[in-house]
Amino acid sequence: MGFDRLIAKIKETGNPSVVGLDPKLDYVPEFLQKKYRDEDGCSLQAAARAIFAFNKAIIDEICDIVPAIKPQAAYYEMYGWNGMKALEDTIRYAKVRGMFVITDGKRNDIGATMQAYTAAHLGSVMVGENELEPFGADALTVNGYLGSDGINPLLDACKTRDKGIFVLVKTSNPSSGELQDQLMDGVPLYARMGDLCEKWGADTIGEYGYSAVGAVVGATYPAQLRELRERLPHTFFLVPGYGAQGGGAEGVAGAFDANGLGGIVNSSRAIMCAYQKEGCDPRDFAKAARREAIRMRDDITGFVKIK
Amino acid sequence: MGFDRLIAKIKETGNPSVVGLDPKLDYVPEFLQKKYRDEDGCSLQAAARAIFAFNKAIIDEICDIVPAIKPQAAYYEMYGWNGMKALEDTIRYAKVRGMFVITDGKRNDIGATMQAYTAAHLGSVMVGENELEPFGADALTVNGYLGSDGINPLLDACKTRDKGIFVLVKTSNPSSGELQDQLMDGVPLYARMGDLCEKWGADTIGEYGYSAVGAVVGATYPAQLRELRERLPHTFFLVPGYGAQGGGAEGVAGAFDANGLGGIVNSSRAIMCAYQKEGCDPRDFAKAARREAIRMRDDITGFVKIK
Repeated sequence: MGFDRLIAKIKETGNPSVVGLDPKLDYVPEFLQKKYRDEDGCSLQAAARAIFAFNKAIIDEICDIVPAIKPQAAYYEMYGWNGMKALEDTIRYAKVRGMFVITDGKRNDIGATMQAYTAAHLGSVMVGENELEPFGADALTVNGYLGSDGINPLLDACKTRDKGIFVLVKTSNPSSGELQDQLMDGVPLYARMGDLCEKWGADTIGEYGYSAVGAVVGATYPAQLRELRERLPHTFFLVPGYGAQGGGAEGVAGAFDANGLGGIVNSSRAIMCAYQKEGCDPRDFAKAARREAIRMRDDITGFVKIK
Repeated sequence: MGFDRLIAKIKETGNPSVVGLDPKLDYVPEFLQKKYRDEDGCSLQAAARAIFAFNKAIIDEICDIVPAIKPQAAYYEMYGWNGMKALEDTIRYAKVRGMFVITDGKRNDIGATMQAYTAAHLGSVMVGENELEPFGADALTVNGYLGSDGINPLLDACKTRDKGIFVLVKTSNPSSGELQDQLMDGVPLYARMGDLCEKWGADTIGEYGYSAVGAVVGATYPAQLRELRERLPHTFFLVPGYGAQGGGAEGVAGAFDANGLGGIVNSSRAIMCAYQKEGCDPRDFAKAARREAIRMRDDITGFVKIK
């Protein structure tokens, strides 16, 4: 309950970071793309198979030192149903290798439709007599603009299946303030959304004091990160925007509590494309990803001491 | 440009309504479910194939009298990649039958990730030398909580590929007011989001005066619907919540301008499940859907005169 499984993995690995698997085809080394083009032609299937092979090799190299992966659904959807198969395969494989999986889908809807998203990503569906898990992630990012009707359907899965959600609160992008920073009775919208996270999560709090309803708070806004850490004591943070988007390790330290818990920091491109930055043999892309994952871990744990 | 294609279809059919294809497996008649279970076992593939067969039969019966369908992505995702294949197949088939397709995905993200969603649903991807259209809808529903960074990547597709988007403004659910009705400098969040739609769409206005950036405004809030119609003169409305959620035809009339244009009203369950309500032979489910689509058209056009 309440991200206990994720927190246990963070403590075990001594690493409060998550590797974002957002595999644009450009990120996949050409030798791997070519292998599947040769087999399947210039098709969506070839792209999707190359992406899964890329992810699988990275998962193999990082699963002992990184607690979680965060596949971004958009980069799978862009290859159609073949891409969605690569997402399913990636999630299944990461779980076999013992990793916690956060699907970054930012899904949102209401009532029965939100139940359908819950079943898709965190739950199961019945077909005849069989209960089947379509995607089977451990957690899902969601958008709370529709209010409680969009979140309540997820809470059942949090309670009965030990899953978690991350609600967008203060996002890492430059224009996040257009709406999120606007004041409502003197309180910015992002803090209102944060307060709702505390409310939605109230009866899912686990042994580390965090609920199953987490929040997405960008590394690019360190002051808000610190403010929200104080305001939302039971809300676990998923922190995007480290590295490529400009957030530094010192800034993200504000996401964490006195025990060095309460948050997990994402890096995607820097890890997936480490082989390009290093200029190493592209065949060593997964080992380069591991080296970058270690560098990131050491960077963050220079400021965050996990007790 | 600017929903001209959709508006032309509405004028041609004399029908400002859209059929929501949200095919819960329970909605699919048992004889059809069984057919595919017998072929594929109790699998996600069997569910997905039954759903596509159900959709296809309904599309065949309504394509001459209804301008558009709106498949809800959640009900396809819940059957995994097989379900996403049924979504692709449904979109392709509806387009072959001449219908306008709005994928209801409420997608949202920023920058390159939003570009990936745009490519997935409204655009194309390159694999080797081939340009491929993954889902190929005409329009997509999106969530604007992240601000302009989440919307700008879509505008290119609106301009260069004659596509459209619908931004969630005031949703039909009971809890939509928790955030959307809260005042920012005296203006409710939903109206702020609406104002942004006018801004985002400003250089995509088509011959009927509407931009390619539409808004989702629920039928369950007729006063806000009327208020927003005045406030947002260039924003085309997608109106959910008619029928099952309690919005009536008189209330939705506020979505339309003096020419009977400016909006399209959705109905999902009442049409898909018309055979259950009628108590007719389940094998006639598609004909029952047609009868209900005609009843809805006549109900709405009793209050909305298209000129």
